[in-house]
This record gives sequence, C-alpha cells and structure tokens, in this order.
Amino acid sequence: MTDVKQVLRTQRIETPSWGYANSGTRFKVFPQQGVPRDPYEKVADAATVHRFTGVAPTVALHIPWDTVDDYQKLASYAREVGVGLGTINSNVFQDPDYMLGSVTHPDPRVRRKATDHLLACVDIMDATGSRDLKLWFSDGTNYPGQDDITARQDRLAAALSEVYDRLGSEQRMLLEYKFFEPAFYLTDVPDWGTAFSHCLRLGERAQVVIDTGHHAPGTNIEFIVAVLLRAGKLGGFDFNSRFYADDDLMVGAADPFGLFRIMHEIVQAGVVGPAGGIAFMLDQCHNIEPKIPAMIRSVMNVQEATAKALLVDRAALRQAQQAGDVLGANAALMDAYNTDVRPLLAELRSEDGLDPDPVAAYHRSGYADQIRADRADGQAAGWGA
Amino acid sequence: MTDVKQVLRTQRIETPSWGYANSGTRFKVFPQQGVPRDPYEKVADAATVHRFTGVAPTVALHIPWDTVDDYQKLASYAREVGVGLGTINSNVFQDPDYMLGSVTHPDPRVRRKATDHLLACVDIMDATGSRDLKLWFSDGTNYPGQDDITARQDRLAAALSEVYDRLGSEQRMLLEYKFFEPAFYLTDVPDWGTAFSHCLRLGERAQVVIDTGHHAPGTNIEFIVAVLLRAGKLGGFDFNSRFYADDDLMVGAADPFGLFRIMHEIVQAGVVGPAGGIAFMLDQCHNIEPKIPAMIRSVMNVQEATAKALLVDRAALRQAQQAGDVLGANAALMDAYNTDVRPLLAELRSEDGLDPDPVAAYHRSGYADQIRADRADGQAAGWGA
Amino acid sequence: MTDVKQVLRTQRIETPSWGYANSGTRFKVFPQQGVPRDPYEKVADAATVHRFTGVAPTVALHIPWDTVDDYQKLASYAREVGVGLGTINSNVFQDPDYMLGSVTHPDPRVRRKATDHLLACVDIMDATGSRDLKLWFSDGTNYPGQDDITARQDRLAAALSEVYDRLGSEQRMLLEYKFFEPAFYLTDVPDWGTAFSHCLRLGERAQVVIDTGHHAPGTNIEFIVAVLLRAGKLGGFDFNSRFYADDDLMVGAADPFGLFRIMHEIVQAGVVGPAGGIAFMLDQCHNIEPKIPAMIRSVMNVQEATAKALLVDRAALRQAQQAGDVLGANAALMDAYNTDVRPLLAELRSEDGLDPDPVAAYHRSGYADQIRADRADGQAAGWGA
Amino acid sequence: MTDVKQVLRTQRIETPSWGYANSGTRFKVFPQQGVPRDPYEKVADAATVHRFTGVAPTVALHIPWDTVDDYQKLASYAREVGVGLGTINSNVFQDPDYMLGSVTHPDPRVRRKATDHLLACVDIMDATGSRDLKLWFSDGTNYPGQDDITARQDRLAAALSEVYDRLGSEQRMLLEYKFFEPAFYLTDVPDWGTAFSHCLRLGERAQVVIDTGHHAPGTNIEFIVAVLLRAGKLGGFDFNSRFYADDDLMVGAADPFGLFRIMHEIVQAGVVGPAGGIAFMLDQCHNIEPKIPAMIRSVMNVQEATAKALLVDRAALRQAQQAGDVLGANAALMDAYNTDVRPLLAELRSEDGLDPDPVAAYHRSGYADQIRADRADGQAAGWGA
Repeated sequence: MTDVKQVLRTQRIETPSWGYANSGTRFKVFPQQGVPRDPYEKVADAATVHRFTGVAPTVALHIPWDTVDDYQKLASYAREVGVGLGTINSNVFQDPDYMLGSVTHPDPRVRRKATDHLLACVDIMDATGSRDLKLWFSDGTNYPGQDDITARQDRLAAALSEVYDRLGSEQRMLLEYKFFEPAFYLTDVPDWGTAFSHCLRLGERAQVVIDTGHHAPGTNIEFIVAVLLRAGKLGGFDFNSRFYADDDLMVGAADPFGLFRIMHEIVQAGVVGPAGGIAFMLDQCHNIEPKIPAMIRSVMNVQEATAKALLVDRAALRQAQQAGDVLGANAALMDAYNTDVRPLLAELRSEDGLDPDPVAAYHRSGYADQIRADRADGQAAGWGA
Repeated sequence: MTDVKQVLRTQRIETPSWGYANSGTRFKVFPQQGVPRDPYEKVADAATVHRFTGVAPTVALHIPWDTVDDYQKLASYAREVGVGLGTINSNVFQDPDYMLGSVTHPDPRVRRKATDHLLACVDIMDATGSRDLKLWFSDGTNYPGQDDITARQDRLAAALSEVYDRLGSEQRMLLEYKFFEPAFYLTDVPDWGTAFSHCLRLGERAQVVIDTGHHAPGTNIEFIVAVLLRAGKLGGFDFNSRFYADDDLMVGAADPFGLFRIMHEIVQAGVVGPAGGIAFMLDQCHNIEPKIPAMIRSVMNVQEATAKALLVDRAALRQAQQAGDVLGANAALMDAYNTDVRPLLAELRSEDGLDPDPVAAYHRSGYADQIRADRADGQAAGWGA
Repeated sequence: MTDVKQVLRTQRIETPSWGYANSGTRFKVFPQQGVPRDPYEKVADAATVHRFTGVAPTVALHIPWDTVDDYQKLASYAREVGVGLGTINSNVFQDPDYMLGSVTHPDPRVRRKATDHLLACVDIMDATGSRDLKLWFSDGTNYPGQDDITARQDRLAAALSEVYDRLGSEQRMLLEYKFFEPAFYLTDVPDWGTAFSHCLRLGERAQVVIDTGHHAPGTNIEFIVAVLLRAGKLGGFDFNSRFYADDDLMVGAADPFGLFRIMHEIVQAGVVGPAGGIAFMLDQCHNIEPKIPAMIRSVMNVQEATAKALLVDRAALRQAQQAGDVLGANAALMDAYNTDVRPLLAELRSEDGLDPDPVAAYHRSGYADQIRADRADGQAAGWGA
Repeated sequence: MTDVKQVLRTQRIETPSWGYANSGTRFKVFPQQGVPRDPYEKVADAATVHRFTGVAPTVALHIPWDTVDDYQKLASYAREVGVGLGTINSNVFQDPDYMLGSVTHPDPRVRRKATDHLLACVDIMDATGSRDLKLWFSDGTNYPGQDDITARQDRLAAALSEVYDRLGSEQRMLLEYKFFEPAFYLTDVPDWGTAFSHCLRLGERAQVVIDTGHHAPGTNIEFIVAVLLRAGKLGGFDFNSRFYADDDLMVGAADPFGLFRIMHEIVQAGVVGPAGGIAFMLDQCHNIEPKIPAMIRSVMNVQEATAKALLVDRAALRQAQQAGDVLGANAALMDAYNTDVRPLLAELRSEDGLDPDPVAAYHRSGYADQIRADRADGQAAGWGA
C-alpha cells in the first residue's frame, strides 16, 4: 500500500483550458453560467481543480483560443494561482481558409499559412516554457475523389518536418490521430499507424498521442498503448470517454473498465510518473454538466483507475499467464479492478492535506457561486474563442 | 423502358429548406457565398433545383428556422416560383431550456413548452396545407443514471398522443429515430423499433421515417424499409449518406449500392410515386460543397438508383430466388445495378423539356453568380436561424 | 443490507447444457478434457455449478443436441443431482436442408420440416415440464437479391403462429434476435424491433429474449431492456459478453459496467426474482477456458452486478434526476458500481451454507480430476452433438 | 480504350486452393457436391477458373491443407492444366497446441513448433518456386489479463526475424493483419500499423498484405492502400467482401464502390500489372454458393472495378482537386464508377479468344456435372484438411 501511494503521489494530470469554456454539438452549444471569459479565468479554474485534487498541476493552452499579448504574464499568473502552463495545442481548423484542409490543403498558400501557425505555436512554447506541442489536424475530405490521398500525405510530411526542425532540443511534437470527424470520408491522420510512421521518420522527439475517443468501434486501445510504449513512441494521452464516436464525455464515464486496462499497461511499463515522459491530459467537452466538478470527477476517475492498476498482483498475474491459466490470469486482473479504491485515495488525500472528497469540498468552497457572480457579464469563452 | 420512364415520371423528391443554408460540424461552420438569408430565398433555391431536375416540386420547412409572419404569403411565393411547401419539421433542440430534453425533460414546464411548439407546428401545417409533421427529437442523456429511461418513454408517449390528437384527418405524424448524437449515452428514440411501437399505439396516421444516416454501423437499412412497408408503417425517408455516423453527405455519395438496394424494396412494393404515400425527402448538410448543385446531384442520385431498381428483371429474380439459386438471384439484381442509367435519364429529361444534364445546365444558368451578388449583404441563414 | 440479501436469494440463473460441451470458432474447436459425452453428463456439470453457487438450479436443453429417448428419466436424473430441466432450445440450423433457411426457406418442404421440429420441441417441453421454448433462427441470406425480404417475413410469421398455437397455456415462446452471423447480409430476425413486432402479433405468451452479444456496435442494451419491460414483452436473457461481434465470452468479462447497467433496469423494475417472469440464462462458448469454473465465474458475475444494482441509492438517484443534476445522478449510480460487493456475497453464501469462494471450492472438490478420468474415453459432446 | 485494354491484359489474380473446398461458419459447414478431395483437384478447379477468365493463372496453397509428398509433381500437374503454383500460406491455428497462440504462445516449445512450421513453408516455397510466404496469425487472447501484450509482441518479432532470415533473396514475407476473430479480446497483429512496424524492422522483402475483410467498421481501406504504397510496403491483397465482420463473401458483392476506390489507388500508383509487385489474391468462403462460378464472378468483379478505375479521367480529376472543386472532383471519379464496363470486358475477352461471358461458358462446359460425378465418393476437402 505504501508503494501504491508513493506511485500515486507522482501522478500528474493536465487539464485543458478549453474544458472550462462552453462547448456543445453541431446542434447547439448550451451556455453555462460562470464560464471563463478569457485565458486568465480558464487558468484560475484549472488551478481550482488542482487545489482540490492535488494532481492536476498544469493547464494546456489552445492557440488561438488562448492567445494573449504577454505569455510571461499569463505564466506568472498561473504560478501565482498554483499551476503551470503545459502543452500548447495548435488550431488549424477554424479559419475559413481551412475548409478543405490546412497543412494538406491543395493550395500552397493555405499550407504556408497553416505551417506558419504551427511555427508560431513553437514561439509561444518558448515563451511559456512548454515542453510539448500537440498537433491535431482536422484535415481530410468528405467525398471520394475530392483530393489525392498520397499528395496529401506528402504535404503533411513536409509541414511536419518544417515544424519538427524548428523545435528546441527539449521540446517535443505530439501527433494526434482521429478516426473521423469533422472529415467524413478521408481523415489524413486517421489511426495510430499513420501518426507512428510520420513520427518515426521525424525523429525521437516526435511521438504519438492517443485520444481515447478517436478510434473505430471495438478498437483495443490498450494494445495501441502497449505497442507504442514498446516502440518508445507514446507521447501522451487525451483522455475522455465515449459510447459511440468522439463523444468527449468525462473520462471513465462510459468505460471505466477500459480506462483501467489502459492504466494497467502504463503501470506495467512503469511510466505513471513524470519520469516516464508520458503526458496525461484530459480532453473532453462538458456539454450539459458543470465544467469544474466534471473535471474534478475526471481527474479522480484517472486516479482510481491508476490505483486499481497498481493493486494488480503482478507476480500472480505473470505466473498464471506463463502457465496458460486463462481464468487465473483474468481473475488476477479482475481482482484489482473489483477492489474499491476510494478509501485508499481518500486516505492519500488526507495524508497530503487535501479534503478526502474533492467534489464535496469544491461544492462547499463557494467557488461556483463566486464565478457565476463575477463572470455574469461579458462574453463566455467557447470553442471558437 | 416505357414503363420504367412512366414510373420515373411519377417520382417526387422533397428538398429541405435548411439544405440551402450554411451548415457545418461542431468544429466549424464554413460560410459559403450566395446563401439564402430568409425562408423566401430558401424557397427560391429549392425552386431552382426543381427547375433543373423536374422531380423536386416541394420544399420542407423547419420551424422556427423558417418562421414567417404569413405562411399563406410564403406558400403563394412558392407557387409563383414553381414549388409547393411540404413537410413541416419541428425543432425542440435549440432552445436553452432543452439542454436535458424537450418532451422527455424531467421538468413538466419544459415538456409543456416543447409540446406547445409541436402543436404550433400543426397550426402552421394548417396554414401551409402540409400533409406531414416530421418529428425528430434530440432528446436523450449523456451519462448512465442521468435520467430514468422508462420515465422518459412515458413522457414521450404522452406528448406524442397530445400532438397526434391535434392532427387533422388528412395530416400525418412522421416519427424519426436516430442512433445517437447529440445525445451520447441514451437516445430516447434510437431505433426503428422504438419509433414503430410508439406509432403503433398512436394510430394509423403515425408512421416511421427513416433517415439513412441514423443507424448503427452495419445496419441493413433495406430490411427496415421492407419490414415497415409490410407493416404499413413506413411514412418516408430522410435521404443522405455516410461513411461513419450521421455524416449527412450527399445522397448516394458514400454507398450508392445501398441506396439502390433501398429503392429496390420501394420499387418492389410499388410505392415509387405519390400514391404510395411515402415521402421521399433529402436531409443533408453541405459543409464544404456548394449547396444547390449538391442538391441537384443528390436528386439525380436518387433518380439513378430508382431507375436501376426499375430495371431489375423481377421475373428472373423471383425464379432464381424460388429455386435457391444464390448466384443467379444475386446476378439478377447486380445486372440492374451495373447498368449505366444515365443515358436513360438524359433521354427522359429531354422528352420532358428539361436539359439532359441538370448540373451543367445549372452552371450555365448564371443563378450562382446572381445569388452571390444579390445576397452579398445581410446575414446568411444557418442551422440556428 | 438485509433487503439486498433477500433479493439476491431469490435470483435464479439458468446454465446451458451446451456450455459444458466443446465449442470453438469456425477456425478450430479445441477439445478439452473431461467434457461431457451425453446429456446426463451435461446435467451433472450443471448440477455442479449449482452446488457451488446456489443460484443456478436449472439447466437449459438444446434439441437435437440433447435428444434422449426418455425425458422423464433425464428429468428425474436432474432432480437426483439437484437441478431441474429448464428452457428448451430448438435447433433448425444444422441440418443440410437448412443451408438457405429453415422456417423462412423458399422451399415449403424445408419450412414444413423446420416447423415440425419446433412443434416436436413443444412435445419435449410437455415431457420435461419446461415453461419456455427459446427460438433462435440463423435464417437469413448472404447476398443482396438472394431472397425476398418480405416473403421471408411472411413465412416466418406463419411458422411462429403455428408453433404459438401449439403451446400450452403455461408455456411461453421466447423469440431471440441477432444482428448477424451466420447470415452475412440479411438476418430475418436481426433486432428487437422485429422480434417485438412478431411477438405482439402472436399474443402475450410470446416474448422477446435478449442475447447480450447480438447487437450492432454501440447499441445501448439497457435501453432495450427498459423498453421491453415497459411493454411487458421481455421474456429473458441470454447472457454473455463481447468486445466485437457475438464473441460469446464469459458474462461480465468484456463489459462489467454494461452488465451492471442492465441489472439496474431489472432491479428498478422489481423483476430480479422468479415472480418477475424473466428467464436469466447464460449462453456462452468456452473456447479456451475450462468450462465449469468459467460457468461458475459467469454466475458470480451476474450476482455481483445484481448486488451492485441493488445498492443504488434510488431515492438519491431519483432526486438528482428530477433536479436535472447530471453529475449527481451519475454519481449516485457510480457509487454503487464502484462498491466492492464480493464481501457481501461471500457473507451471503456462508449464511446459506455455501463456500464463500465458489471457484476455489470447486477446484478443491476434485470434480475436475474426476471427470477427466471418468470421461477419458468416448466422444465428447460438441455443438454438433 | 486501347490503353485500358492493354493494362487489363496485364492483370493477374490468384485464386486460393481452399476457396474450392467446403467452408462454413462455426454453426455449420454445409457440404457441397463436386468439391475437391485433394490438392490436385483443387488445382484443377483453379485451372478451370483461369480457363474461363484468362486472368487467374496461379493458385495459392495452404499448408498443411495442401501438403503433398512431391511438390514438383504438383507443380508439374498445375502446369499441365494451365496454371502455376503461387503464394504459400502457413497455418499455425489448427493444431491443438495452438489454443493459446502459436509464435506468441507463452510456452517456448509451442513457439518453436510454430516457427518450425513457418520455416518448413519456406522449404516448400523452394520446391514450388513460390515467391511469397503469406503469414496470418490467429494469435491473440480472449480475456483481459490472459497474457502480456508486450511479451507477445516480443515473441512475434523473434519468430518473424527467424523466418525472414531464412527467405531466399527472391522470396518475400507478406504479413497479414486482422481486426479480430478467432481471438476476441486481443489480436496480436490487429491492424496495418502493427504489421507495418514489424515489416519495417525486418527489411524490404517483408511487406503488408491487406485482407479487405479484416478491418474495424467504417475503416477507409483505400487510405491504407495509398499509405502502404507510398511507403513501399504494400505486398498484396486478400480480396473478399463483407457487410459486418470477416464475412468472406465474394469480392465486390457487399461494397462494389469500395472495391472500385481501392483499385483507383492501384491504378493511380501504376501497379496493376505484375511489374508493380502487388499480389492480388482472392480469399473468400463460399458457404452457400457453388464455388467455381463464385470464384469466376469474383475474378470478374475485380476486373470490372479495375476497368472502371482505368476509365477515370485523371487529368480532369487532378484539375478539379487542385482547384478545390469538391463536386467536380467527386464527379470525375463517379463518372467512371457509373460506367457500365461489361461490354468493354466482353470485347476484351473475345479479342483474346475467351468467351465473353465466363459464367455462362462455365455453366455450358459441363465441368460442374463432371466433378459432381467424378468426386461423388471419398472425403471432400474442407478447412481442416
């Protein structure tokens, strides 16, 4: 148990600035009260999540949604409220020029514009001290024949190379893949194989990031985790959960068992803590639920899955696996999953000076009422701002 | 051939007013030029599609997007430009009150409001002379436990009954189902079985409408068509196509063979023309393609699939089926599918005084330039307006 | 807790005779040691599962795999070893005549033969005293055009009517649906809607049975449970689990959270015990794991899911649902799911004179060694015998 | 047109020996009449398919199903009847030892046995003069925890290396992936990314083979084709079609449009003919349809898709793509797809001395009657023999 707690203490989960802003579906964005109006307020909300959970010490930024004049000032505000600035996420999918693609667009002018945006994100990383540049491309096509698959791969490769070359020696490129949406026929980086092969070619600071909602139905995600870890090419996660497509529900809400199986691979590879070099990030859309407590719940769900994975009796597991004992090996894993780890985590929090129940503590804190009042006027931040 | 042409001449395809307005994904709505700014301009665009195809004589309205002060005036404008007003589509998914549901909402006040909107749609039908009220509910939940499945069914049933009872004797209720989105855990009307059982209970003027994009991966849609036809409960279609989820691509773009198989069931049941009582509607989002030529293309794709289905040698097919000749029966169907029916349709159009190539004729017509100029100012219509 | 235990004590889970025999995939059936060679030995194994779990008092038969000369004798043997004979399962998919269908076959001779088999199963029910006739049809087609969808529905309806009319007043027909396999284009009863509409027409003793592995990817099964319960048309379950298609893995192995959500609907409707009229059956293929301990584990998994569902704080849940408290309602459900109910079930077993750990008790019992020795010679039973 | 015909004349499609034998599902193998009883008769059937189509000059063997004492003799028989022996397929999934895996099995003894079988297949290649060794592994697990994902990858890598090193300088290893089945939780080579990364490591004579039925629902297969071609790592195809999982229906039967899109990438890369180094193989199970005419139909379907792809107006396509003309580019592709190429292929066959209608010619030939008579006695070959 002491060991389990020690590992849990090393865990770091990054929350996304856009997770505090309004989000929705193509049918409607339902506005919520108390939503941040600018990057500073997003950082303040992220700091609140960290204050109650103790394991979310950084916040990811999204450019241009989080564009500010002075990133030093934002970083120093973040430090003040108790968090750091983390991963920089680029956005090359909302400018009208990107309707048919960004770095894969048939028009070189648009590709240049998109690549310049990515390079500008590296400038911001220099200013914020961020380690990771996370790249997700919505690029793709909606109709067979609309564009040439191979030509688009060539264009993508060229842009990635240019950006990779611009990275500092301590900076990484995390390349994300997605099965579909918003492109509905071809997605230019649709699967881990594509992201992996581009990263291989680029070099060791290019790594794959797994968004748990970005797969075909039935995909065994922990397999991808294991294979990328084995190849030294797993850079991080965008955690969320889904029943159907990229539903972006709270982490662990749709498939808690799947989350546990992923964390089992992480624990087995010994990369729970920062030394493992894996960025554990959340990426979810709170369309109908209050954002801050949803984020707290998601952080806790990752913690609980990790705690369960740490409880697996690895010696018994390995022995059963070696013996071809199908039921015994499965039981070794399930025993850990079936354990209620909430008391253990409550104890850990208490030992570390946190409230054992972060959600209840948040509700008692009055923060929700305060932001509802403070942020009543002005324009709430959303995906487009 | 003469028979085939005769049946094709009876075909009627309704285009949706919202298909002429801007649409997009949750990531971005890319605005297009020349997009209508009000219901009158949408009707004008629909009339243009009819002018070049000859088989799209009505346009469906969506309330409140197409709310006008005087529906008689809109109807009379429509007649002037050569089309009629068709199905009335209700919208109970964009008011902030509907975040957790409309007619299935836990709060009776919201349910009342939603039901009142549906009743108001029937008032509009009375004014426009529309036969069909099409109901699609985005109602559902995102998280297990969020609400009670059974209670929501009860609330749905109550609202449907109230609206059904309000219908005139020549009016119908078409109930649409959808697998998921925007609800990501539970959808209250997720499949044809649910829609069917509600319609059964309501009475014979309640019928199911099939949106071809609203199914689980792998679903055999023509089976549903056949089963609903057999039960006398197929009211109509929302045609579009998809590779993944509800992609809303142009009809026939993703799976032309599937569209043919659907039309084969329609032809077999002898319900191609208006006497069959099936409403053939388009419902697609033109996110990246120009809307009017995309609509023309979709109408043509339905026609081509119908023409192929009409060419099936039904005697040979039946004989092979009866004989258990698997390859022969399949070949009878495929022979028709593999036929190039474009010459036949070109001939039909020429005979009927239409240009044999509707897309080219549209491009030559100057309509696109004209609306780009005429509609340069003002606010383009979109899904929200 | 007392209440929870009382309800758990009423639970009855039926195990399938074929679950003790060899099974496999189309690629290979890997034979196991100690597998029963006849229906008597299958019954003995089922009795063993009941002996250690206390909640599996009946065994389902499959005809003709379990054909015997004297069913009274088999029933009386079953009673001797401590179990009863349960549901009768028909098999109209393995005779060469059924290659293109059974009751939906284009040839009336084959339909007659198939229907006669179903009627013969009712005769067996009379002999065994079984309440339920479970019908699963592999009927369907592999190629578009191969047969007429509507004609096949007509033939199916005729056969079902004839069999339904033959049932005694205390006997039921349970109609199962399946998304696909072994038919790969059209399945004649592919979804709950089809099964439901046939059962509706037949009468109140015709009900739908849900096999948890028989759905399209992403299907919300608990919704179907709730809707069928609401309509009084849920007859029972074939429990198993899957990651992909009809994988037939041990119950609860692939998606324990899904199993819990199903049992939550069952608990909510108050139909856990026999008075509820729901038949809880297992139906799984143990391709690579020893069959008896796998069955014990499956029975325990159903129990654990039921126990968790019984622990849901229903008052808190309802209150949060009514208040539109998305996170609170979800948390009320998850609190129960996250509870470790194994101690509670161990206690229950001890109180009832059972070993608290059924799997360990089975392993200690020597039964596995004994059947390996006793059944070393002869022909092991499999799916085909 | 002359060019189109010239390319079509270079096309070579390999048929599989096992495609002439009995096959089925896990529920039943329905025996057919006239099925070959040994490898010689399978070769004779393959030669018949070639005789009528003119483009299927080789037959793939499957070891041990096609084990013979003297491969020279089999090769020389094949030459006599007009075909050659092609790809060697290994089988490490039907020996009882392989229940928990072959080259990834936890037990080194089993891995040794499996690897030795693969090496023995290379010996056979030396004897038959085959260029390609096709490896498909059913290896995987059914339950989470059953075995270690990473350890299995290590074992796989070791076995592949040993076999690769054994290959002659003109021999290739084609590594196949499969989404699932017969493994239902983890498949050790589940996707192109995994196959690709192993092949990359092995060297240039290791290449990926795409079975069109081995993907998750919705997967864009032509993207994988394009990406592997771009990387120089596409070795070949196992063609078949499916609506759901690995249905193994006749090529082009379920998604003729998808087959066309695949061939469009092949044509675009200029690798239709043998000089392109791509092995075009069929791999399908004729469960209910007569095997030889089904194979002829499949060969013709590949030809028709190729002919359509060759008809694409590539200049128009490229111009529309470059201009961002979504509808124009899609139309350029669809124009070719909508063309009826059967007259062109009939003409080509006539010019080359073949019957213009291969299926009709086969039926007239009397071959079916002859084999039904000749092979009435003895044991029909199946998947297991």
